[in-house]
Amino acid sequence: MMGDDVESGNLGPYQDKPRTFPNMRGKTYTPLIFRILMGINVRVLVILLLLGFGYIFYVGASTSPIIVFVFSICIVSFLLSIYLTKWVLSKDEGPPEMVQISEAIRDGAEGFFRTQYGTISKMAFLLALVIFAIYLFRSTTPQQESSGLGRATSAYITVAAFLLGALCSGVAGYVGMWVSVRANVRVSSAARRSAREALQIAVRAGGFSALVVVGMAVIGIAILYSTFYVWLGVGSPGSMKVTDLPLLLVGYGFGASFVALFAQLGGGIYTKAADVGADLVGKVEQGIPEDDPRNPAVIADLVGDNVGDCAARGADLFESIAAEIISAMILGGTMAQRYPSGFILFPLVVHSFDLVISSIGILSIRSTRGSSVKAVIEDPMTILEKGYSVTIILAVLTFAGSTRWLLYTEQAPSAWLNFALCGLVGIITAYIFVQITKYYTDYKHEPVRTLALSSSTGHGTNIIAGVSLGLESTALPVLVISVSIISAFWLGHTSGLVDETGSPNGGLFGTAVATMGMLSTAAYILTMDMFGPIADNAGGIVEMSQQPESVREITDVLDAVGNTTKATTKGFAIGSAALASFLLFSAYMDEVESFANESFKQVDIAIPEVFIGGLLGSMLIFLFSAWACSAVGRTAQEVVKEVRRQFIERPGIMDYKEKPDYSRCVAIVASASLREMIKPGALAIISPIVVGFVFRVLGHYTGHPLLGAKVVAALLMFATVSGILMALFLNTAGGAWDNAKKFIETGALGGKGSDAHKAAVTGDTVGDPFKDTAGPSLHVLIKMLATITLVMAPVFL
Amino acid sequence: MMGDDVESGNLGPYQDKPRTFPNMRGKTYTPLIFRILMGINVRVLVILLLLGFGYIFYVGASTSPIIVFVFSICIVSFLLSIYLTKWVLSKDEGPPEMVQISEAIRDGAEGFFRTQYGTISKMAFLLALVIFAIYLFRSTTPQQESSGLGRATSAYITVAAFLLGALCSGVAGYVGMWVSVRANVRVSSAARRSAREALQIAVRAGGFSALVVVGMAVIGIAILYSTFYVWLGVGSPGSMKVTDLPLLLVGYGFGASFVALFAQLGGGIYTKAADVGADLVGKVEQGIPEDDPRNPAVIADLVGDNVGDCAARGADLFESIAAEIISAMILGGTMAQRYPSGFILFPLVVHSFDLVISSIGILSIRSTRGSSVKAVIEDPMTILEKGYSVTIILAVLTFAGSTRWLLYTEQAPSAWLNFALCGLVGIITAYIFVQITKYYTDYKHEPVRTLALSSSTGHGTNIIAGVSLGLESTALPVLVISVSIISAFWLGHTSGLVDETGSPNGGLFGTAVATMGMLSTAAYILTMDMFGPIADNAGGIVEMSQQPESVREITDVLDAVGNTTKATTKGFAIGSAALASFLLFSAYMDEVESFANESFKQVDIAIPEVFIGGLLGSMLIFLFSAWACSAVGRTAQEVVKEVRRQFIERPGIMDYKEKPDYSRCVAIVASASLREMIKPGALAIISPIVVGFVFRVLGHYTGHPLLGAKVVAALLMFATVSGILMALFLNTAGGAWDNAKKFIETGALGGKGSDAHKAAVTGDTVGDPFKDTAGPSLHVLIKMLATITLVMAPVFL
Repeated sequence: MMGDDVESGNLGPYQDKPRTFPNMRGKTYTPLIFRILMGINVRVLVILLLLGFGYIFYVGASTSPIIVFVFSICIVSFLLSIYLTKWVLSKDEGPPEMVQISEAIRDGAEGFFRTQYGTISKMAFLLALVIFAIYLFRSTTPQQESSGLGRATSAYITVAAFLLGALCSGVAGYVGMWVSVRANVRVSSAARRSAREALQIAVRAGGFSALVVVGMAVIGIAILYSTFYVWLGVGSPGSMKVTDLPLLLVGYGFGASFVALFAQLGGGIYTKAADVGADLVGKVEQGIPEDDPRNPAVIADLVGDNVGDCAARGADLFESIAAEIISAMILGGTMAQRYPSGFILFPLVVHSFDLVISSIGILSIRSTRGSSVKAVIEDPMTILEKGYSVTIILAVLTFAGSTRWLLYTEQAPSAWLNFALCGLVGIITAYIFVQITKYYTDYKHEPVRTLALSSSTGHGTNIIAGVSLGLESTALPVLVISVSIISAFWLGHTSGLVDETGSPNGGLFGTAVATMGMLSTAAYILTMDMFGPIADNAGGIVEMSQQPESVREITDVLDAVGNTTKATTKGFAIGSAALASFLLFSAYMDEVESFANESFKQVDIAIPEVFIGGLLGSMLIFLFSAWACSAVGRTAQEVVKEVRRQFIERPGIMDYKEKPDYSRCVAIVASASLREMIKPGALAIISPIVVGFVFRVLGHYTGHPLLGAKVVAALLMFATVSGILMALFLNTAGGAWDNAKKFIETGALGGKGSDAHKAAVTGDTVGDPFKDTAGPSLHVLIKMLATITLVMAPVFL
Repeated sequence: MMGDDVESGNLGPYQDKPRTFPNMRGKTYTPLIFRILMGINVRVLVILLLLGFGYIFYVGASTSPIIVFVFSICIVSFLLSIYLTKWVLSKDEGPPEMVQISEAIRDGAEGFFRTQYGTISKMAFLLALVIFAIYLFRSTTPQQESSGLGRATSAYITVAAFLLGALCSGVAGYVGMWVSVRANVRVSSAARRSAREALQIAVRAGGFSALVVVGMAVIGIAILYSTFYVWLGVGSPGSMKVTDLPLLLVGYGFGASFVALFAQLGGGIYTKAADVGADLVGKVEQGIPEDDPRNPAVIADLVGDNVGDCAARGADLFESIAAEIISAMILGGTMAQRYPSGFILFPLVVHSFDLVISSIGILSIRSTRGSSVKAVIEDPMTILEKGYSVTIILAVLTFAGSTRWLLYTEQAPSAWLNFALCGLVGIITAYIFVQITKYYTDYKHEPVRTLALSSSTGHGTNIIAGVSLGLESTALPVLVISVSIISAFWLGHTSGLVDETGSPNGGLFGTAVATMGMLSTAAYILTMDMFGPIADNAGGIVEMSQQPESVREITDVLDAVGNTTKATTKGFAIGSAALASFLLFSAYMDEVESFANESFKQVDIAIPEVFIGGLLGSMLIFLFSAWACSAVGRTAQEVVKEVRRQFIERPGIMDYKEKPDYSRCVAIVASASLREMIKPGALAIISPIVVGFVFRVLGHYTGHPLLGAKVVAALLMFATVSGILMALFLNTAGGAWDNAKKFIETGALGGKGSDAHKAAVTGDTVGDPFKDTAGPSLHVLIKMLATITLVMAPVFL
């Protein structure tokens, strides 16, 4: 197959020129934890593993048969994911020039990952100490002490959960990157043979990390839950009630979002600074194509795809799922005071089924049919969507089954049906979200075409039109979220479930179920998302190793599909962040109530201090976005200077006579991103704590109890609302600019090289930090704020 | 003086080329109301005027001596403003070529004003009918009926107040434009003689409209107040209480903000579409200077300065002051239940003193000293700031005096001192706001210099840096507002004033007093603001009539000063909008309470529907900004096409051989702006009503009383917060881009014509609709939302 193309002489324009490749050391990096594991004798390892399995099944069985079911499914999916990796790794890596490039990318990515996660883990340990100290000195109620949840215990629990969450989030990121730096070269190599095979490798590699990420979120929470259950002797008289157990898991969510925030910030700054910097000099000033081996920043750009899109998105989605499961479990705990404990474990079951149905969806994409290059070059999107349809149909069925299994109660026999409908609301919301995102970012539709047209009158009108488009695109998703929150709330409210006083209280849980419905195909969504950067990277390797045009065409089609799936995942992430945040907010109110031992049902924005809390919350979003964007701008300028310097000092680069110094660009971007991620990250973590503490003190001196808690609640809500809108604006504007440029590149309005194209490239450059740095960081920020207020609640009281 | 320059041959480069001037009919337009007045016999007019004076002094005297004091000061300031106009109009209009251009500008401005206000008045009458119908069919309480405030009465009162507010707002806009289209040519003419004289004419022209605008706001409210007082027999047993009277004035504020919103939208779209369109073809494509007579869009651009900056800003500040006075009077009414009625009339007195001290400030700018061209060319900013210092010192003194006079009460003898300190907080806040705005928008400081530097790496990095700068600039103002709200609240709270139950209730009134302190020099601020567009226009006339370089230099300096004062006024407007909105919000809560006859003290954002109201409120701001910006983009594209067409079809234009068709551009921009202002304006007015009504119905069917009112309250608060932040972002980013370009034009980073300059021009173009269309419209929108919810409250209940 490959021979055909090469023999027929279908070779790229650079074929006859001397090739230059990066020549970096190919030493692979293995994180400490893996090195320790690999240092141990295999037999010991097997014994340890069996002991581990034994332990989790023991605590699982002591807790609930449902937990055992969840464990079993997670372990099966881990086995499946190991099969997927083996399958991907068994594919050939192509000719040595591809391998060399791939190794350079891997080195860069792993080097950055090591330093970045080194920094993050130091900060995590520091924060763990702070949390420990806070919990050790907080005041507790006699009830809490008697139920075994004294100061020391809750300090240990919160810190342990936090660290486990942080570790899992880190592993999720590492896994995403690990597979992508290995799969990219295999996809490039396969693209020489068949588009279908290349697609399948990319999908299975994405599927591997998706299964690991979702599975780890589920099993991590299940282990923590059952360990606490057994350790605290839940259920036995005088000790803690099972309904309060989920609140102890919040630390896990905070740890996950803490790591995800810095992973997304660092990775997002890295990838876009390298991209913008490479494009500004390479494409705009020198007129060489994207991913051209002569561009000194090209390796940094390709590394960026891995650390920004794969590692960061893995951590991001891990955190989304963890936050959503925990918030739903907390609400389930409230319901389980009168109804079966299935209400608590329901989210874990939903995501267990998610693993099953997504695996079926992933495996449904096969390379058996039509393996010739031409036959299938058009339809990767159709193939992916076919898999998605399979997954979504199964999701509706399993979701209805899960509600009947776990949410059936004799007191309200039709309640499960209402909740099944809530799930359907969530699934439909997700579907509409995807359609809206497509409408605003796909060049088949009006908005992007208008944007492209406005490029023909200059850079200025292009930017004005893009900003307007982005701002306008917030309207429909907000309406959809509003309708789905209200309808899910009323479905839950009228489900027949009531509290002790007999008044209906299923409303919030209905919203939670809708959120779960929205995320019930998370693993498949993540697969499609991970697929994008792998394809993007494969395209870069093809370009750099100067493969024939036809190979590049295949990776280009895959890359374009990846862009669409990436944009839609963001719609997903932000929709679920909105819902999860709203749920965590009500958990926060409950938490404050139980800590303060007095009623805390309302956050009244007519109080000046509370209003100011809201003002500060919205401001936090604006400032955070500002710092995230300007970090990219500043770092990109450093790259521009370095690339310009290399072109001047080594004039032979343009004629392939001299080798550019790729590693210098990699080093510059890496150190700058690490430096730049600190400021916005620290802002996000410190400001709610400081605001809460200041107003607590102010409230103390002015005789306002709970002032700090109220102000933080307003901060959280306003930040959530502004964050959703800002993220929608940034993501959509960025996606639309990108595709307006692509539309012009198809030949519209003068095509490549025209003035309209130049204006569109400016728009694309502006959109880069919007859609890949600030926007996705905001998704994480919203949930991190929700979890940090929960964990840090003792500071405000 | 002028002879010196001309004789010395210091003439512009275009002197030797044949001149082309617009040749439009010079028929001046007079609005219907003025034509009717002028049609009446002078003696009849005098008698009518005297009768009018008699009436207002009669009702004033029947109400309170304070009202008489207010009336007297307003009438004196009207007399002073007539003197200022006569003084300005007595100046010479310069050579015929200047007069011709000025007449073309006047025609365009008055033509647009006529059509625009024709549309606005039709909408206002329609809305008045709707309000009337709503009030006629609303439910009233027996108390309201017995106090003489039945359905019909309150319908008449609200509609009358609304129409009077709308009329006054319209007159305020007309006055601003009327003087500016007459002063511009006189400033150009004076610039040929002396910078100082030019400055003085511009300041006095601005002073005229400032005094009329502020005076009309004060006297309008005072007349309404005393008329209602006398008509409803306030104070006599069984009838309405004086403390409830201010609530009847809300219609006036709504009418004012309704007209101001459309004036700002239409004018803002007009001015920036013409500006962007003219620049994109003239400056960027053809390389001719700004305001060059060869540019077919140049007259439209100059017309835009008048309708956008003068007319719209007049209506905007009129509305700001009216909203602030009314909201403070409503709060004063709450206080006056136990304390003297001076609490109600305090805001009117503060603005009466404002008229006095600002007049002194305006008159302190004289042309006696140093009237030679060179001697004073450097210091117009210093002169203006000296006048401002005089005004501010007097403001502190008169403010303290007013608090002692009106807010002294024997029950709390030191309360007035606390309120004087609140006023000081407001004045200091205003000062800090001005400094922050300067820091972020002046190229003497770090941020704009960094922005300029980022232009050297391209269009993309310039836009990223500008957006970041704008987003970041929201932080400090929010912190300042927060601190000032809290400190003013606590000063008021600890003033010793208490409600019937003995608990302190002066907090909100303290915030109101701080707002008044902030606006206590409003007339002077407005003078400085109006000064800008007059100077800008004068510069345009100088350029178009091809005056010597030295004359252009003088107007350039004045123009640059105008840019700075314009930016600072926006900081002012947004700060006061934030505070006024917060006050109107509490008035809304009171209003709902009295309508619904049940307690309504809290807006609880933990309720899903209320949260959704907030989400919709923030979304409204994003959508409104999107539509305002895209309206400019679309209209500018029409201008670009027309200008390009003229350059192609009349190739002689570039050699001054053919005359461009200015009127066609004027007509295009005018009709497009009228069309484009409807969509965002209608959105702003309709959405709170629809949201309130829908949730009222939803609440009715789900057993939630007051749900509509609560949701609207959340919508209002979230829209206020997001609106403040968005307006700060848009204004500052726009101003910074403008000045970054100016900084490069001073010769930095390669100067004019360099790549950095081109990138900076792109930034400036993007900033235009941000800072002059969407940003200022948001100031008005925030207050319009606050008044519309008050007036339309019966719909939600």
